Amino acid sequence: MQLDDMILVSVDDHVCEPPDLFEHAVPAKWKDRAPRLLEKTDGSHVWYFDGAQVPNVGLNAVAGRPPDEYGMEPTSLSQLRRGCYDIDARIDDMNANGVLGSLCFASMCGFTGELFSNCEDHELGHVMAMAYNDWHVEAWCGAHPGRFIPLALPMLWDPQKTADEIRRMAKKGCHAITFPDTPTGLGYPSIHDPHWDPIWQACDEEGTIVCIHIGSGTGMNLQDPSAPVEIMITGTPVTLFNCANEIVFSKFIHKYPNLKIALSEGGTGWVPYFLERADYVHKHHHRWTQNDFGGKLPSDVFREHIVTCFIDDAVGVRTRDLIGIENITWECDYPHSDATWPSSPETLWRTLDGVPDADIDKMTHLNAMKHFRYDPFAHLDKDECRVGALRAKAGHVDVTPKSVQGGKKPSDYENGYCTIGDIMKQMAGAYATAFEDGQGIDPAEAQKQMMERMAKQAQARR
Amino acid sequence: MQLDDMILVSVDDHVCEPPDLFEHAVPAKWKDRAPRLLEKTDGSHVWYFDGAQVPNVGLNAVAGRPPDEYGMEPTSLSQLRRGCYDIDARIDDMNANGVLGSLCFASMCGFTGELFSNCEDHELGHVMAMAYNDWHVEAWCGAHPGRFIPLALPMLWDPQKTADEIRRMAKKGCHAITFPDTPTGLGYPSIHDPHWDPIWQACDEEGTIVCIHIGSGTGMNLQDPSAPVEIMITGTPVTLFNCANEIVFSKFIHKYPNLKIALSEGGTGWVPYFLERADYVHKHHHRWTQNDFGGKLPSDVFREHIVTCFIDDAVGVRTRDLIGIENITWECDYPHSDATWPSSPETLWRTLDGVPDADIDKMTHLNAMKHFRYDPFAHLDKDECRVGALRAKAGHVDVTPKSVQGGKKPSDYENGYCTIGDIMKQMAGAYATAFEDGQGIDPAEAQKQMMERMAKQAQARR
Repeated sequence: MQLDDMILVSVDDHVCEPPDLFEHAVPAKWKDRAPRLLEKTDGSHVWYFDGAQVPNVGLNAVAGRPPDEYGMEPTSLSQLRRGCYDIDARIDDMNANGVLGSLCFASMCGFTGELFSNCEDHELGHVMAMAYNDWHVEAWCGAHPGRFIPLALPMLWDPQKTADEIRRMAKKGCHAITFPDTPTGLGYPSIHDPHWDPIWQACDEEGTIVCIHIGSGTGMNLQDPSAPVEIMITGTPVTLFNCANEIVFSKFIHKYPNLKIALSEGGTGWVPYFLERADYVHKHHHRWTQNDFGGKLPSDVFREHIVTCFIDDAVGVRTRDLIGIENITWECDYPHSDATWPSSPETLWRTLDGVPDADIDKMTHLNAMKHFRYDPFAHLDKDECRVGALRAKAGHVDVTPKSVQGGKKPSDYENGYCTIGDIMKQMAGAYATAFEDGQGIDPAEAQKQMMERMAKQAQARR
Repeated sequence: MQLDDMILVSVDDHVCEPPDLFEHAVPAKWKDRAPRLLEKTDGSHVWYFDGAQVPNVGLNAVAGRPPDEYGMEPTSLSQLRRGCYDIDARIDDMNANGVLGSLCFASMCGFTGELFSNCEDHELGHVMAMAYNDWHVEAWCGAHPGRFIPLALPMLWDPQKTADEIRRMAKKGCHAITFPDTPTGLGYPSIHDPHWDPIWQACDEEGTIVCIHIGSGTGMNLQDPSAPVEIMITGTPVTLFNCANEIVFSKFIHKYPNLKIALSEGGTGWVPYFLERADYVHKHHHRWTQNDFGGKLPSDVFREHIVTCFIDDAVGVRTRDLIGIENITWECDYPHSDATWPSSPETLWRTLDGVPDADIDKMTHLNAMKHFRYDPFAHLDKDECRVGALRAKAGHVDVTPKSVQGGKKPSDYENGYCTIGDIMKQMAGAYATAFEDGQGIDPAEAQKQMMERMAKQAQARR
C-alpha cells in the first residue's frame, strides 16, 4: 500500500456551529427562545441562550493558523477557518487532507449537550437538544452523503428521554451518542449506577455506540495554574484510562453484550499497560475481593466493548497486537490544536512502516465502519475515497497557514511563556467583554465565576 | 542466564515498624512524647502519638496469608508475618524470594513522614522524624550490611530542615529521601514552587535520589464507593503519570543536572506512550506556548532524571527501548498485596524471555545500584547474591500461606463483593475500637472523621 491508497475515517473531529443552526430546526413556538449568536463590542461572538452567554464559538479551533498563533481564544467567526462551520468548506478541507469520513462533536453546547441539560426548564432543553440533533444529522451530515458519521446529543437529565432519542435518531440512521467520561463530574450519578440502564439498553438494542470524549466529565487537566500549559495538554487524553478502568470492572457492561463504547481522543499507547495491569489485579486479588466478572478477564471485556482512537501514536501501532487490532481507530481532531490537518496522511504514514495492509485498513477505516455502523461505499465509489483521489479534488483549496493576528506574544504572558493559569484567564476573558447594548451578564462577575468554576474543576478531578 | 543467576534488587518494599523503634533512637528528654504501640480491647494495635491514634500497624501487609484472606485490616502484630517488622525474619523472607537488596518505605508515619510533619509542635516532629531516620539507617538497614538501600523521611513543613537532613543522612550513607507525588495533596505548595529548591539542591549536591511513592500526595484512587475495589487498585500506579508529566515540563528540573527522581510503584508500561505524547505536545505546541525547555525534548528530560520501576510488567519490558534501558528498575512490594513474594523470580522470569543478559542485569540490579548509590558487593560476594544462592540459605523458611483468620467473607460485603466503599469502611473501622482504659478518641467520631477525610480525598484528586 502507498500513502495515497489509504482510506481515512476520523472518529473525532469538531464542528463550530453556524449562526443559522436553530433557524430551521426549531419549531415555531420555541423560536424566540432558541440560542442566538450575538456579536459583542470587541467583535467576538457568543451564543446567548436561556439567560446565559456561551463564548464557545470556536474554542481552540485553530486549524489553518500559523502555529505561533494557536490559542484558546478564537471567539468570533472571523477568526475561524471557514471549514470549521461551513459544511461545503469542511468537505474541501477533508478532501485536502485526504480524509473520507468524519464524526463531529458539538462545540457550543458542550460535548454532551450540557448547555441544554442544564436548563431549569427541561422542556426547553429537550426541544433544543432535539433540534440540534436534527440539524446535525440532516443539515450537517446529510449535506454530503457518505462523508459523515452522525453523532447525537443525549438528554443527560433523563436517561429514559435519552433512550427515546437514541431510538429516534437510529431511525434517521444515526448510531452514535455522546456521554461524559465521569457523569459525577457534571453532577449526575456514577457510571456504575443503574440510573443509566435505559441508555445502555437502547444502545445495545439499536447498535448505537457511546462516544466518550476527553474533558466531557472530568474536565480539562487543570492543576497548578503556575505550571506550563503543556502539562495540561499532555495529560488530558490519558484521563480516559480511568474511564476504561471503570468500564472493564463494572457490573453493567455484562448485561449489554452489544454495547460499544468509544474513548474519543483518548489515545491508544497506554492501553497495553492498562490491560496487563487490569488483568494482574483481577488474577492477583479476585480471591479476596470476591468479585466475579462473568468468568472474563478485564482485557476480554475491553476488547468486546471498547473502541480506542489515536491522532499520532507510534507506540499504539507497534503494540497493536496487545491492544486488539479490531479495537483501534484513527482520528484527525480537526480543527483543534492537536490536529494533524492538513498533513494527516503523512503524519500517520510515518507510524505505519512495516505494518501489513490488512492492519492498516482496519485502523484507518474498517474498524470505524464496523463499530460506528458507517457505510460510505453505499454512496461513493471506493477508489474515489482514497487519500490520493480525495486530494485530487481539492486543488482549489488553499491550506497554507493564514495569519488572523491571533495567539499571544511572549510579553502577553506574565512569565514569558504560557501557563495553565494563562489559559484559564483566556477562557474566562471571553466572558468579560460587554454586549453592544450593555445587557447580559456583568463582565467582571462573569470572569470571576468562570475562574472559580475552573479552580474548582482543577481540584475536584473525578 | 538462568532464573537462579539473576541478582534482584527491589526498590519498593515496606517496613511495619517494630514496637521498640522509638525506645532506642529518641533522646531521653523526648522519650515520654515518642510514639507508643498500644493494644486496644479487640486485640488490635495502634500507634499513639501527639494525642492521635494511628492504626497503620500493617495496612495491607498481607504477605504470607492465603490470597482469600487479603485485606486492608491487618492491625495487630499477631496478624502480620514476622518478616514485616523483624529484621532477621525479613532477611529470611528476602532470601526465600531470592531478593538481594531492598528499599523499605515507612508505614506508621506515612510514606513521607506526614505523622511528624503534621505535629503542631514542629520541634517534636523534627526530633521524631530524625529518630525514625536514625533507626531506619542504623537498626533496620544497618543490621545486615549490603542488604538494604536506606531511605530517609523529609521534614515536609520546612524545605531547609529537609535539606539539612538530606546532608546529615548522606554522611551516614543514606542517599534516598521520600517526597509526595503532589505536595498540594498534603496542603503544601505545588511541586513547581521555588519553595522546594533547597531540597532539590541538597539532593543534586549529595547525589540523593527523591523517591515518590504512589498514594503519597494524590492519595489512593478512591472514586465511586459503590464500585468494585479492583478499580482503585488498577488505577493507583498510573497516578504517577501525572507526576512524570509535571516533572518533564517543569522549570526547576533544569537547574539540577544530577537530580534523580524515582517513581515508586508507578509501573513502566505506560511510559512509552507518555514520552511519545509529551514530545508530540512539545513539538506541536511550543511555537505558541513560548515554552523553552533548554533545547531538550520532554523525553530527554525524563531519561536524564526519572527512574521507573515495575512489579510485573511485560509491556514495559517489551518496550524497554522506548523507555530507556537505563531508567528501569524492579520492585517486589513486600509485604503488600500487590507483591509477588515468595515467587518473584518466577513471575519476573516469565517476562524476560528473549531479553539479553545485559538488559536483564540493568533492570534487575545494575540500574538500582547506580541510581540509588547502592553497592552490595562491597559487603557480599557477588555469586552469593544471586537468586539460587540466596534461596539455598533459606531452607528453614516456611513460605506456605498461613491462615490468620483474616480477610472477609462474601457475606461481610453488602453486595457480596468488595467495593471501594467497603475498603474505606475497613480503614475507618480501625479507628472505631476503644482503648482498654476507655481513653483516646471517641470511636464513632474517629470513624466519621476518617470517612469524611477519605470522601474528600476521593473528590479532590490533585
